[in-house]
Amino acid sequence: MRQSQFFTKTRKEAPADEVSKNAQLLIRGGFINKEMSGVYDFLPLGLRVLNKIINIIRDEMNMIGGQEIFMSALQRKELWERTDRWSDEKVDNWFKTNLKDGAELGLAFTHEEPISNMLEQFVSSHKDLPFSVYQFQTKFRNETRAKSGIMRTREFIMKDLYSFTKDEVEHLEFYEKAKKAYLNIFKTVGLGDMTYITTASGGSFSEFSHEFQTLCDAGEDIIYITDENKKEALNKELGMDVATQEEKAVEIGNIFTLGTKFSDGYLTYKDEAGENKPVFMGSYGIGPARLMGTIVEVLSDKDGIVWPKSVAPFRAHILSLGQGENVLKLAEETYKTLVDKGVEVLFDDRDVRAGEKFADADLIGIPTRVVVSEKTIESNMFETKDRATGEVKSFSLDHLISELQR
Amino acid sequence: MRQSQFFTKTRKEAPADEVSKNAQLLIRGGFINKEMSGVYDFLPLGLRVLNKIINIIRDEMNMIGGQEIFMSALQRKELWERTDRWSDEKVDNWFKTNLKDGAELGLAFTHEEPISNMLEQFVSSHKDLPFSVYQFQTKFRNETRAKSGIMRTREFIMKDLYSFTKDEVEHLEFYEKAKKAYLNIFKTVGLGDMTYITTASGGSFSEFSHEFQTLCDAGEDIIYITDENKKEALNKELGMDVATQEEKAVEIGNIFTLGTKFSDGYLTYKDEAGENKPVFMGSYGIGPARLMGTIVEVLSDKDGIVWPKSVAPFRAHILSLGQGENVLKLAEETYKTLVDKGVEVLFDDRDVRAGEKFADADLIGIPTRVVVSEKTIESNMFETKDRATGEVKSFSLDHLISELQR
Repeated sequence: MRQSQFFTKTRKEAPADEVSKNAQLLIRGGFINKEMSGVYDFLPLGLRVLNKIINIIRDEMNMIGGQEIFMSALQRKELWERTDRWSDEKVDNWFKTNLKDGAELGLAFTHEEPISNMLEQFVSSHKDLPFSVYQFQTKFRNETRAKSGIMRTREFIMKDLYSFTKDEVEHLEFYEKAKKAYLNIFKTVGLGDMTYITTASGGSFSEFSHEFQTLCDAGEDIIYITDENKKEALNKELGMDVATQEEKAVEIGNIFTLGTKFSDGYLTYKDEAGENKPVFMGSYGIGPARLMGTIVEVLSDKDGIVWPKSVAPFRAHILSLGQGENVLKLAEETYKTLVDKGVEVLFDDRDVRAGEKFADADLIGIPTRVVVSEKTIESNMFETKDRATGEVKSFSLDHLISELQR
Repeated sequence: MRQSQFFTKTRKEAPADEVSKNAQLLIRGGFINKEMSGVYDFLPLGLRVLNKIINIIRDEMNMIGGQEIFMSALQRKELWERTDRWSDEKVDNWFKTNLKDGAELGLAFTHEEPISNMLEQFVSSHKDLPFSVYQFQTKFRNETRAKSGIMRTREFIMKDLYSFTKDEVEHLEFYEKAKKAYLNIFKTVGLGDMTYITTASGGSFSEFSHEFQTLCDAGEDIIYITDENKKEALNKELGMDVATQEEKAVEIGNIFTLGTKFSDGYLTYKDEAGENKPVFMGSYGIGPARLMGTIVEVLSDKDGIVWPKSVAPFRAHILSLGQGENVLKLAEETYKTLVDKGVEVLFDDRDVRAGEKFADADLIGIPTRVVVSEKTIESNMFETKDRATGEVKSFSLDHLISELQR
């Protein structure tokens, strides 16, 4: 992709009303746009990152047998009344709207009710279980305050997976698989080292749930690390008396044992003895944009964003320096060669000063910067800089290609 | 994918309240679920088709230089007030909602206002033009009646592209490119022969717009074909006096010259002479689910759906017949071999009668049915049936692979 053709531009300052570090950097880099407090658009660079995170999550959900679906955002009132989650006293972050005939509809803040209702037509026997379904779907949550950039928003894509099993034993088998899949996801996106499996409250569903908490100054949770080697922690909300240090953390995923709360009397199956039993459920959430915001919060430095390779919008950032004909020609050739070799490249082909290109490259945070200048022509070697470590190296074209293909 | 592991099942009858043919077949085949009138969920088979259509559209939009973004559904009232599209008298299909402080928000039925507003920060000079942006994003439309299945819904993913140019001349250049891209899309998804570029009203934006109308009994438009060879037609709404036959048709895409309606006074650029000019805009819509519904309407037969290869959920459908050990073994091996060779296969490995498997295969509509039975073992040849033509052929395994890889 040629930077000269992007409709976005970097900016020196974030909007004055934007207080979160992740949104400040992402707005300055041209990744996102703020529609209003807690509502953001994804611009081309930002959408590339978001989609990479989504695909990492999707791969892991498929690996544990999840079947992908896509439910509606508009919700029937009666489904939520039967579980007593319709009233604004019970659920304080509904967005609601109306059909023309005045009938009230909800905008989904989660999907347990419609998913278990939809499954009533498909589940009748123990032979239909176990299975799991998931989606990447927009959730709407009427947050009172939304000051954490893309880490807490009023509208966001969520990966929510729901598991359907015969009983708690079968449920826990799947639950452990899901836990491992979550750890794989957080490791792949570069947050493994600072993420803790945290025992938290199960709310109205069960005694405990598990959260995946990443150490982060901008986090809204407080955790106690109980086992550094096993990466285990407790959420302060449990009120347990623990002698470890308090750490600020952000919840980047959670897994819940729901039990039969959403199925009892509705979603049932006949067991081997022909007896009707409620399906045993679990739910498993990750917000890809919260993950993206967390990566920016914990991995950025004073110059800008530092994307791990797995989620970076591009693998390499070619900067042509100067407007010499030979330099422009070599930069073009190098860009085309790398793209042909399957490397995702952003090519800064703009006619601007070198200092501006360097500053923008640091801000945007692509893993490897490749400079093409008069010096490149003289030496026949390409100078690269690693965005994360600052390490500078020189490569012949062949070695550059194989380095970037790894 | 193994059919025994799908959580969905086919059903003999569609819900009694479902009057449209496309939704009846798609519900019976397990592609979609009806949440309420005009609101559907996409189940695994349906989501596969929808995503194939989306990717065909995306490729064409990228080819004409479109830059993909993802805007929010929640909308600020003031942006729509300034173009006089906020009041329910002016726009009769808004869904609206409220923040906790009572502030009204809209749920986007289209995105001209927020997109042109967002671009004010990026466009200042003629050097910033032309460009185009597009998205696949959920639109909400408060339809009074929604009886056309997934062809007209209250909530749907739309591909909307917006072009930004200096003037009408530059606009028309892009407009013609977009027109060709649209024709490519409709040809690729199997609707080329019955789709007409139809001159229609331009509404409040310009004198004319262009619709892509597919001949279809379930369509809500009436067109006059004016040139069969050039695939050109006129929409009856224009009130022109034309002597050709009336044809019922469904609008599967439209392209609009917006001019400066959304930019005048807001989204402007300095031309070569330093003078401020409003950006000249166009908009270009396709609803992937409407396309999917139209394919079902016009290509299905009495036995079920007939998917073109380009959008089929799978390329081949293996049916194992009987529960003989050798048959099951060969069916498993054939399934694994085809998957290894990159063929998308649905494998009906269920322990049900042959007649049920045949009927389900016809209903689901995968292009090539492959039977594995005792006869296959005896003859060492695989019998295939083409879902569209009914043609039966026999292939050795090697030839089957190359046939399905084409």
